[in-house]
Amino acid sequence: MKQDMFRRKLRAGIVGGGQGSFIGAVHRMAVELDGQVEVVAGAMSADPQRAEASAQAWYLKRSYKSFEEMAEVEASLPDGIDFVMVAVPNHLHYRVSRSFLEHSIHVVCDKPMTFDLEEAQALVGLVEQKKLVFALTHNYTGYPAVRQARHLVRTGAIGTIRKVLVEYLQDWLMEPVEHTGNKQALWRTDPTKSGMAGSIGDIGTHGENLLEFITGLRIAAVCADLTAFIEGRQLDDDANMLLRLENGAKGVLACSQIAAGEENALSIRIYGSRAGLEWHQMEPNTLLFKQPGKPLQVLRTGMPYLSDEAKATTRLPAGHPEGYLEAFANIYRLAVADIRRVEWGESPVGGYPTVYDGLRGMQFIAKVVESSQKGGIWTDF
Amino acid sequence: MKQDMFRRKLRAGIVGGGQGSFIGAVHRMAVELDGQVEVVAGAMSADPQRAEASAQAWYLKRSYKSFEEMAEVEASLPDGIDFVMVAVPNHLHYRVSRSFLEHSIHVVCDKPMTFDLEEAQALVGLVEQKKLVFALTHNYTGYPAVRQARHLVRTGAIGTIRKVLVEYLQDWLMEPVEHTGNKQALWRTDPTKSGMAGSIGDIGTHGENLLEFITGLRIAAVCADLTAFIEGRQLDDDANMLLRLENGAKGVLACSQIAAGEENALSIRIYGSRAGLEWHQMEPNTLLFKQPGKPLQVLRTGMPYLSDEAKATTRLPAGHPEGYLEAFANIYRLAVADIRRVEWGESPVGGYPTVYDGLRGMQFIAKVVESSQKGGIWTDF
Amino acid sequence: MKQDMFRRKLRAGIVGGGQGSFIGAVHRMAVELDGQVEVVAGAMSADPQRAEASAQAWYLKRSYKSFEEMAEVEASLPDGIDFVMVAVPNHLHYRVSRSFLEHSIHVVCDKPMTFDLEEAQALVGLVEQKKLVFALTHNYTGYPAVRQARHLVRTGAIGTIRKVLVEYLQDWLMEPVEHTGNKQALWRTDPTKSGMAGSIGDIGTHGENLLEFITGLRIAAVCADLTAFIEGRQLDDDANMLLRLENGAKGVLACSQIAAGEENALSIRIYGSRAGLEWHQMEPNTLLFKQPGKPLQVLRTGMPYLSDEAKATTRLPAGHPEGYLEAFANIYRLAVADIRRVEWGESPVGGYPTVYDGLRGMQFIAKVVESSQKGGIWTDF
Amino acid sequence: MKQDMFRRKLRAGIVGGGQGSFIGAVHRMAVELDGQVEVVAGAMSADPQRAEASAQAWYLKRSYKSFEEMAEVEASLPDGIDFVMVAVPNHLHYRVSRSFLEHSIHVVCDKPMTFDLEEAQALVGLVEQKKLVFALTHNYTGYPAVRQARHLVRTGAIGTIRKVLVEYLQDWLMEPVEHTGNKQALWRTDPTKSGMAGSIGDIGTHGENLLEFITGLRIAAVCADLTAFIEGRQLDDDANMLLRLENGAKGVLACSQIAAGEENALSIRIYGSRAGLEWHQMEPNTLLFKQPGKPLQVLRTGMPYLSDEAKATTRLPAGHPEGYLEAFANIYRLAVADIRRVEWGESPVGGYPTVYDGLRGMQFIAKVVESSQKGGIWTDF
Repeated sequence: MKQDMFRRKLRAGIVGGGQGSFIGAVHRMAVELDGQVEVVAGAMSADPQRAEASAQAWYLKRSYKSFEEMAEVEASLPDGIDFVMVAVPNHLHYRVSRSFLEHSIHVVCDKPMTFDLEEAQALVGLVEQKKLVFALTHNYTGYPAVRQARHLVRTGAIGTIRKVLVEYLQDWLMEPVEHTGNKQALWRTDPTKSGMAGSIGDIGTHGENLLEFITGLRIAAVCADLTAFIEGRQLDDDANMLLRLENGAKGVLACSQIAAGEENALSIRIYGSRAGLEWHQMEPNTLLFKQPGKPLQVLRTGMPYLSDEAKATTRLPAGHPEGYLEAFANIYRLAVADIRRVEWGESPVGGYPTVYDGLRGMQFIAKVVESSQKGGIWTDF
Repeated sequence: MKQDMFRRKLRAGIVGGGQGSFIGAVHRMAVELDGQVEVVAGAMSADPQRAEASAQAWYLKRSYKSFEEMAEVEASLPDGIDFVMVAVPNHLHYRVSRSFLEHSIHVVCDKPMTFDLEEAQALVGLVEQKKLVFALTHNYTGYPAVRQARHLVRTGAIGTIRKVLVEYLQDWLMEPVEHTGNKQALWRTDPTKSGMAGSIGDIGTHGENLLEFITGLRIAAVCADLTAFIEGRQLDDDANMLLRLENGAKGVLACSQIAAGEENALSIRIYGSRAGLEWHQMEPNTLLFKQPGKPLQVLRTGMPYLSDEAKATTRLPAGHPEGYLEAFANIYRLAVADIRRVEWGESPVGGYPTVYDGLRGMQFIAKVVESSQKGGIWTDF
Repeated sequence: MKQDMFRRKLRAGIVGGGQGSFIGAVHRMAVELDGQVEVVAGAMSADPQRAEASAQAWYLKRSYKSFEEMAEVEASLPDGIDFVMVAVPNHLHYRVSRSFLEHSIHVVCDKPMTFDLEEAQALVGLVEQKKLVFALTHNYTGYPAVRQARHLVRTGAIGTIRKVLVEYLQDWLMEPVEHTGNKQALWRTDPTKSGMAGSIGDIGTHGENLLEFITGLRIAAVCADLTAFIEGRQLDDDANMLLRLENGAKGVLACSQIAAGEENALSIRIYGSRAGLEWHQMEPNTLLFKQPGKPLQVLRTGMPYLSDEAKATTRLPAGHPEGYLEAFANIYRLAVADIRRVEWGESPVGGYPTVYDGLRGMQFIAKVVESSQKGGIWTDF
Repeated sequence: MKQDMFRRKLRAGIVGGGQGSFIGAVHRMAVELDGQVEVVAGAMSADPQRAEASAQAWYLKRSYKSFEEMAEVEASLPDGIDFVMVAVPNHLHYRVSRSFLEHSIHVVCDKPMTFDLEEAQALVGLVEQKKLVFALTHNYTGYPAVRQARHLVRTGAIGTIRKVLVEYLQDWLMEPVEHTGNKQALWRTDPTKSGMAGSIGDIGTHGENLLEFITGLRIAAVCADLTAFIEGRQLDDDANMLLRLENGAKGVLACSQIAAGEENALSIRIYGSRAGLEWHQMEPNTLLFKQPGKPLQVLRTGMPYLSDEAKATTRLPAGHPEGYLEAFANIYRLAVADIRRVEWGESPVGGYPTVYDGLRGMQFIAKVVESSQKGGIWTDF
């Protein structure tokens, strides 16, 4: 146990996220936002020069050439990192996470969790064995309005859920940008780096996770129609799927990275026997609550009528917009609290996506791809 | 030929639409809005007292006890009606339409066009034989913004269409209101009156029609999941379906009459290789035009940059909201112009939904029901 | 008394509104929408050819060359008009109205009511003497959501009103279009036709009327700053003013016809000691109800929770948008009902803007112009 | 010169902002967001226990009992703070800022800048003399969309500005919460702590600053009507004012802290001879660009068509919402860059609100109060 942990900020390291990366800076801003963590070490790129430059730009105390070296050395230092942030392409998630877990270092990892289902299952076993915190950055569940949505479902305000409509629409792959130097596009459209899933892995799993997080229901079966609209692209850039949930509810999940003019349009609508809910990630501080025959209610982040959980993930008064970084930081806030707990010998309390959510996401990918490859047939989970 | 037709308003009759009906008053307001038509005769209810009271409330000149009598008498009068409006439940559409067509009276009919596919095919034959105007009130195609959307597709602004998302969400059947005296609900949930389709006939066909109207593309295959969420209800009150269009585009059509808190939320989003479009019936004067990497454009009814067709279906300057009745009236405006043309010996020019759209809708219903009954399998059109 | 009036539609005439006019067609569509009125006679233009062509296009039974002739002849006919619609420029409102009133014909007149305050006072006297219906088309008070707003104020839901923000923003006069053949612009910027008020008469009075209609409070004092931004324009095309209401509430009224990019953006926001209200004419079926510390409520036209008056001015179910014409038609609906009452010997019940509202508007214009001309000083009503 | 400054994060201190404060945490999150600063020292409360607890919660290295002590000691330390953040009530702004400036420590200070105009003038002199960075947290100018708005004005896209409408509406003082333990309310309604301005100082100055920032125009005269709606409240909780700008443009500024149901509704609309602009703080990533006769354009943060300055104040791709903290952090980003420059011997480049903006705000307060106290008369700047 790191006995001083309650008198200091936690120390974090990062693998990946070097210059040119979008998500690296997001991790740093999010993890440090609450003043509970400082990022001190990194193996930020496979390219040594970029790794070094990235580390300097972040004023890191220690920069490594490889994640293996980093895991080993940090584990041996008296002021080594308490946890690592894994911000590398999918095919490396498992190997990096395993390295640090095996050195008893907690892990916060990007999604989708692993390259394939087998890796996911292995990772579950490892996390269970090591009894360490493993958090997955399904960051959209960090929004207070999403927490409030879950609260309304849990407290019965929605009634029995009947219908769920989930969308995640972007347009950044509507041209073959992987051939014109876009690094993000390059690995995401490459099955050797991304795995079997294109858009459904990159964004579809966010939709799946959000749906199950809010509703508390499992997807029971899927009928999926995946498409690669760009000629020569090997992975799906668009998907439409019908869903059946475990309680008999029906649903649709549509995701796309070729939806012209869409920025990052994740949304969910839920219809129950008593009321409905609607939330849009691009207006994240607003949650619509729809009771039949009554005025639509617009619930707003920061307001006194929200649930304790929604309040606990809000940093500002109503009307002071919080956004993507703040939601991302909420995942860290919850995971960091658990890391402190576990180090102190207490049980973790969760509240953030875990290795089981990651496994669930990999199962989702496998079933969706199977359904589509068989021509779009219903496939049970 | 009615030689005086150009010096007077046209004379219309109505079958159905008596007191208590929603759509009857809609037909009257819409047909008369442009000052080109007066409603003079009706067989407004099977209940003689209600028929008479309804006719008086509308100051009709002639009220009939049956549509058969009305067709026969009106056809014989020198100042008989020029066309009839058919506003009865689905199972009577064909019989009423046929009566008037056989007496050489033009017809404007509610949708879905007939009780089943056989009747639809028979009606096509009859209309072709009689060379009369037959208009179907897929009224949502009457909105100027919908015309503008079609214009943008036709002129290539959208590029090759890749993805289409159509929704039609309501909540008025989310309780078993057919058992508590709601007449609208009673016949719409009764397979002997509505036919094999519940929500997909009542509102799903609007979605199908809107999609094909704007895109100019045919649905090639459907994979549908229909549900009756209310216990004992015999027809679907909710449907989710995947679509494949003839050009390889993919789509989703979701309709529901149990979507808690939704009023009349018909919407369509279209994504092409060049740009996207979005339109919502509940904000009908706004059309969103989405070009990747450029500012979203908000196109508005009444503005000078719109197409001629969009202008021709607008009555007011921008900022003076037009709504449902005005769009409905546009269907009548176009149909009435054709009735004048046909009577004058000219060819009809169309622009409104016809008997072929009605046939298309009945095929859609048949395929969707087939797909769902077989467990949700892909079914070709 | 016209004894047959309850067995027939009322007969209306129109003065002005000939081809090229915007408001003429609006009057016809609005007055006939409910099937209670037919327009049968008109003196639609001072230009005889245009008058005749306009009358033919409307299938009028009788077309006159002058309103004086029309008033006299119609008053003498057994099937003469029951009321007249006055759709001429401001400087003629009084003369036309007086002609018909003196022939005992009811009047529905455009706003502002007269050319100046003296005419307005004379008209009040004449209407009081003749005991006829005089309705003024402050059409925006016809919206159901406006009626609901007034209901919420009246029933105490807002508490004591403290602050009112009213805006009416357009851009159609942002260029000197009166010099390029725009007839609407020509007379509206001409003090010999419009009177002393430009934008404040054309649209500012709508704002003033809406404010007093909803709040039930009188404006007690105004401090106004009028501007003509277009060189050479003689009347204001923009105005900002501070208001003090009779109960101590404060307010702002801003109107403009040079507000680039604005269509017809009339809105009102009211803040009281208990709650607030917000309504926008361009989304007319929505009324926002704002209680501190509670979820914002979105009230919607056509819903069961609305007041009786809001329901009585709605023709369609929720989600079927109603717009400008329907609101305009509500003024007619209420006025026509009173015309029937008065002819039957009953007392009128009102609900529409009357000659007193018109007088109030002319007082408003006078005070606003006085305030501004004196450099923008507080001027009591 | 602190020669190591380019190899390390800057060191910041804070005065005020202890537990219970809203703005203290905002400063910490904002200043550290970019990983360029760490907060190391503080005099966080006049209450020693609260000061100590607050410092521990932030893991500060040094906690002081008074700001005077802090300024003196930090100035003497080899690793003392590079700048201080001033987060105390208004009446202390000047004294605290002076203490640090006199010890050659840069200052970032809350607004309004000082207790009164005299202090503001003195502070200008001191800053000019010391040649240090003094930044004022008019944080709303930190939003990328606000920068883009200024860019559009500067590049002529709006043309000559004619009309400006600014609002800042809240409701948190609509009840007499200063009597029920709300500390924020207590000092803000106390003229000995806030100065002569209530709402116009707290939020009105934000509106004034935003207007002048975006338009580049000075307010030339004001006609103001201030009100304290809560009985016994000594400072205004509501204000409406007419504005005249130096170029002849007209405007309205309305602010309120009793606007029931409003959260933090700061907005600005600008109308020029070529186009208009609209921005709402509660939807901060959207800027509306309104060209007459053309489709409304919705400009969005993170998009490629934005100006360099708007891009430089954005951290995430389009569709990933940024909010209040990110905008606040932009003020720090720009000020910190200047602190580095000044320490390196370069000239500051600005881009953030300075002591001159603070002086301007205090002049605004003085003129507005004067105008209102004289009954609401036009008062020149």
